[in-house]
Amino acid sequence: MIVMGLDPSLTCTGWGVVRVEGARLSHIANGQLPTDSKLPIAERLLAIQQGVSAAIADHRPHMAAVEEVFVNKNPQSTLKLAHARGCVLAACAAHGVTVFEHSTRIVKKAVVGTGAAQKEQVQAMLKVLLPGASIAGPDAADALAVAIAHAHLKPHERR
Amino acid sequence: MIVMGLDPSLTCTGWGVVRVEGARLSHIANGQLPTDSKLPIAERLLAIQQGVSAAIADHRPHMAAVEEVFVNKNPQSTLKLAHARGCVLAACAAHGVTVFEHSTRIVKKAVVGTGAAQKEQVQAMLKVLLPGASIAGPDAADALAVAIAHAHLKPHERR
Repeated sequence: MIVMGLDPSLTCTGWGVVRVEGARLSHIANGQLPTDSKLPIAERLLAIQQGVSAAIADHRPHMAAVEEVFVNKNPQSTLKLAHARGCVLAACAAHGVTVFEHSTRIVKKAVVGTGAAQKEQVQAMLKVLLPGASIAGPDAADALAVAIAHAHLKPHERR
Repeated sequence: MIVMGLDPSLTCTGWGVVRVEGARLSHIANGQLPTDSKLPIAERLLAIQQGVSAAIADHRPHMAAVEEVFVNKNPQSTLKLAHARGCVLAACAAHGVTVFEHSTRIVKKAVVGTGAAQKEQVQAMLKVLLPGASIAGPDAADALAVAIAHAHLKPHERR
């Protein structure tokens, strides 16, 4: 089973693909899709969508996973994130890839063992879980974490 | 000049296309894109994007206009709206159609003459401005209002 994790954002969307064979996990690929902040938002969103679409076409995931989103302390940032997230979800649907949504807490718990893990702990754990993988940056790392969390969840825990 | 107005929402996205020749305004087409709430959000977003894309391909607008969005009293609704809005913006960019954003106040002021106009006043004014146009519903009406507002604004007022 091939799982793609996605970490959408208007500035830089991360993606990561892992293969799951029983309890065995291996890294396939990961990347980041930075957008040019000087471009209009519509063009940045199109670039994100095209980038995700290309990664799906390249790696043919059986399913995708993304973190849930809530309006946090910075509503304007969340609004931008939601624009990008919408485009990422539609790109998955266009390829017939079902997207599962997991809370940040569930992702951290699945990767590190505690829902209160720090970003650095997640990144350190990625090196253990995907030895030798060259990770494009923090957004790709977050995307790989979501993919791994999804792979670790039992089918009835997925939604 | 052909202008497409868009009123994105996850439930039902409205679109409307008008022709502007100097001070003369005429109706070309309008429609609504309801989505099936039983489907996963990713598929609903894809349907919205494909619907907008088809309307652009059919009516070839020179530019598009959409209302600005803010996080309001209901953050979860705004978040859903932003997902749909992202897909709508990307659809415009995919066709090379530049999207302008106007505040609700500017739209109401341009259509009715006051930024504090009620929804019913906007709809009544549409019947005057686009006589004989058959309007698909309230979302298509809102989309036509944005298109008309954009057409009425002077170039330096557009952004």
